[in-house]
Amino acid sequence: MKMDTKKMVEEITSMEVDFAKWYTDIVKKADLVGYSSVKGCMIIRPYGYAIWELMQAELNSRFKATGHENIYMPMFIPESLLQKEKDHVNGFAPEVAWVTHGGSEPLQERLCVRPTSETLFCEHYANIVQSYRDLPKLYNQWCSVVRWEKTTRPFLRSREFLWQEGHTAHATAEEAEEETIKMLNVYAEFCENVLNMPVIKGQKTESDKFAGAKATYAIEALMHDGKALQAGTSHYFGDGFAKAFDITYTDKENNIRHVHQSSWGVSTRLIGGIIMSHGDNNGLVLPPKIAPIQVVIIPVAQHKQGVLEKAEELRIKLAEKFRAKLDGSDNSPGWKYAEYEMKGVPLRLEIGPRDIEGNQCVLVRRDNREKVFASLDNIGETIEKLLEDFGNALYEKAHKNMTGRTYACKNADEIKAVLKENGDGFIKAMWCGEKECEDKIKEDTGVSSRCIPFEQEKLSDACVCCGKPAESMIYWGNAY
Amino acid sequence: MKMDTKKMVEEITSMEVDFAKWYTDIVKKADLVGYSSVKGCMIIRPYGYAIWELMQAELNSRFKATGHENIYMPMFIPESLLQKEKDHVNGFAPEVAWVTHGGSEPLQERLCVRPTSETLFCEHYANIVQSYRDLPKLYNQWCSVVRWEKTTRPFLRSREFLWQEGHTAHATAEEAEEETIKMLNVYAEFCENVLNMPVIKGQKTESDKFAGAKATYAIEALMHDGKALQAGTSHYFGDGFAKAFDITYTDKENNIRHVHQSSWGVSTRLIGGIIMSHGDNNGLVLPPKIAPIQVVIIPVAQHKQGVLEKAEELRIKLAEKFRAKLDGSDNSPGWKYAEYEMKGVPLRLEIGPRDIEGNQCVLVRRDNREKVFASLDNIGETIEKLLEDFGNALYEKAHKNMTGRTYACKNADEIKAVLKENGDGFIKAMWCGEKECEDKIKEDTGVSSRCIPFEQEKLSDACVCCGKPAESMIYWGNAY
Repeated sequence: MKMDTKKMVEEITSMEVDFAKWYTDIVKKADLVGYSSVKGCMIIRPYGYAIWELMQAELNSRFKATGHENIYMPMFIPESLLQKEKDHVNGFAPEVAWVTHGGSEPLQERLCVRPTSETLFCEHYANIVQSYRDLPKLYNQWCSVVRWEKTTRPFLRSREFLWQEGHTAHATAEEAEEETIKMLNVYAEFCENVLNMPVIKGQKTESDKFAGAKATYAIEALMHDGKALQAGTSHYFGDGFAKAFDITYTDKENNIRHVHQSSWGVSTRLIGGIIMSHGDNNGLVLPPKIAPIQVVIIPVAQHKQGVLEKAEELRIKLAEKFRAKLDGSDNSPGWKYAEYEMKGVPLRLEIGPRDIEGNQCVLVRRDNREKVFASLDNIGETIEKLLEDFGNALYEKAHKNMTGRTYACKNADEIKAVLKENGDGFIKAMWCGEKECEDKIKEDTGVSSRCIPFEQEKLSDACVCCGKPAESMIYWGNAY
Repeated sequence: MKMDTKKMVEEITSMEVDFAKWYTDIVKKADLVGYSSVKGCMIIRPYGYAIWELMQAELNSRFKATGHENIYMPMFIPESLLQKEKDHVNGFAPEVAWVTHGGSEPLQERLCVRPTSETLFCEHYANIVQSYRDLPKLYNQWCSVVRWEKTTRPFLRSREFLWQEGHTAHATAEEAEEETIKMLNVYAEFCENVLNMPVIKGQKTESDKFAGAKATYAIEALMHDGKALQAGTSHYFGDGFAKAFDITYTDKENNIRHVHQSSWGVSTRLIGGIIMSHGDNNGLVLPPKIAPIQVVIIPVAQHKQGVLEKAEELRIKLAEKFRAKLDGSDNSPGWKYAEYEMKGVPLRLEIGPRDIEGNQCVLVRRDNREKVFASLDNIGETIEKLLEDFGNALYEKAHKNMTGRTYACKNADEIKAVLKENGDGFIKAMWCGEKECEDKIKEDTGVSSRCIPFEQEKLSDACVCCGKPAESMIYWGNAY
């Protein structure tokens, strides 16, 4: 049984040698993405898209449980509409794609392809909200958006990407703030329980806010290489957009008031996050809840009588409860082992003539290659338990990576020393709240502010930069 | 119990007075669509989008059962890529939206927003297909597409719409042709069994083919007003695109061969189809399988003790099997009756104090307002049966409309007389196969060719136009 440790499929660069190359190797060899002549855009291949569909189903059920409805807005935004909120247009205009012609005719007003849809939702809310009875409006949209990035990487940063954007309107500031935090918590719960990826919840600094927001909150994850990934954001707008777009309602006392709003989004970037949280030098490792194949059945000595039949019988049985696949192709078992390891399938089920005789099979975990012999009688329960353990183990491992690579520092020199000794990671440090200090730390050490975590610690009284009284502890890091 | 025949919500134009106005009234008052400042594009409101999501789920299960995988391609097509297949670019270039700038910089090559994605799929197939072992490729994509239409109507024709596009590559012409017809049959089965909308399956004439196709097949439905709606198309490409894009594979004998291809699509236009197939002067009437609410529970005398509690108990029970909603709002029962009739909810369940005493409720069908008293003991079975009957009744009614408005004609004068007497409908007539006759019939009578149906009848030996030997029977009509 040495075969499963060999790499029978194409080698990938090891992550210790070149993490960026390791990443793009996996993306390609696990068949997640294809390249086209459309610069900066990706083809999401069936295996990658199936992961996204499973994420969508999990998120949709959470959005529905919190009272949200799906809607679809136009993909174009007229320039004049984009310009209605000043901070917003300043933030996005430099990176939008402009449509200038319809057929052979120039347009009277050019349209941008949505980089995000606040302006469209605001216009719609202005049309449909009249009374306090119409509130709250809790909408979500699944769509693709476009941002004209200069440098791109599959899933992490591309000119077009798929996402969901929630947009809500409320009667009061309190309700809108509550929604903003509620959805950040939904994202965090989803990342931890579905993607098995621990995250830090916190608030972005002033200089890192979304264009037009009063406050931006984020969940930040730490990748294998110690770099941070902003995995989702939730924005509180106050009544800023409502004033720019004149979204008003009549309250119970017949006063005309502006609504208060939020928006929040996660994207296909999360697929990049799970690659870099769980993957290893044999390829992808997928969280069971979003794995397109949870169990792959590999027949051993499949030419022998009854083996393929038994394997197919097993597949039919397992398919009632799991996403199960049987690979009865002519490739060798060793090639198959490597192939489904590359694709990150959580469990491999091997079954050969002797197993069939003994009414058993072999189950192999993708993460640690632990093997167990399992009776076919209660195979469903065994797999269910193994998948649950598997998800928990992924979380524990990623959590250990995160806490092991989180360093408390008191000044810029300590930050530099820690980074030099350990490579990238989260730096926890106190901060006075001034932009000057935030900028100077980045200039001196290279790390930028990630977020002001909800879970504060008092590491000291003094700002890591200026030494003046500190306002809060902040996470710093290099980010994707 | 007269309330339910009154219109307590806003009146809609009756379809006999102005069918086009009736249609747009329903679209708006059933809350399917919203308008924005983006000309020619629509907002698909939550209720309309929920219908689309249910259609997607039904179609996805059929695509999966026939071996297809979902994939996502970029939304942009470089001009040079669009131009690779000559007929294709001639067909689409006049109606595409062009992106010319990214941020403030002009692009080196302009990009069109996909009007359809044959060119992108072909480029991808050229990259990923090498051997006969790689075939067939059976891909599908859910996305939005853009065609710069001059006149637009919600769902029926808009500059942006949502659809699915299947794109397949096969080793042989026979396999590609088989796929083309198979998917047309999937669409027809879906329309008839899920949308309760009868369709005619047939082939488009030469002049009506998709740009770049060897043959285009379509399903054609007949609306309430006698106009035809092309509800879905399936195209056979032969190896035309494969030659233009150099998509080749090595066969078992080591010869290099071109693949043969198909593509097929249906869109949000189908929502327009169900409105105009089943709707009436009280609003929408929805097929049970795609109704976001299948049963709405309206409490009667809901202020009385125990009524709302019992209604909610019932909702929880029904929600296990159906998409059920309880409206316990302060609006009057009459207002609610009209509201959910407007929204086309198949069944209304009324429950009041006396019903509760008798362990029963009242069920009212949306289509014919038939009322039945039903025991609460087996209410699930009763509703299941009623929904099934309801769907069948919708189909029967639409089928009767179609056959009743289909007329066999022998010459142009007969066509004109029939149209004058009955208004629009399907005209069945023989045709010699010449474009001149097709054009002349349109010029003389106003109706255009819809399709050459698979189910042929021999009405006579002579072409309806020139009188020369006829090749086939053809359906003609005015179309959306």
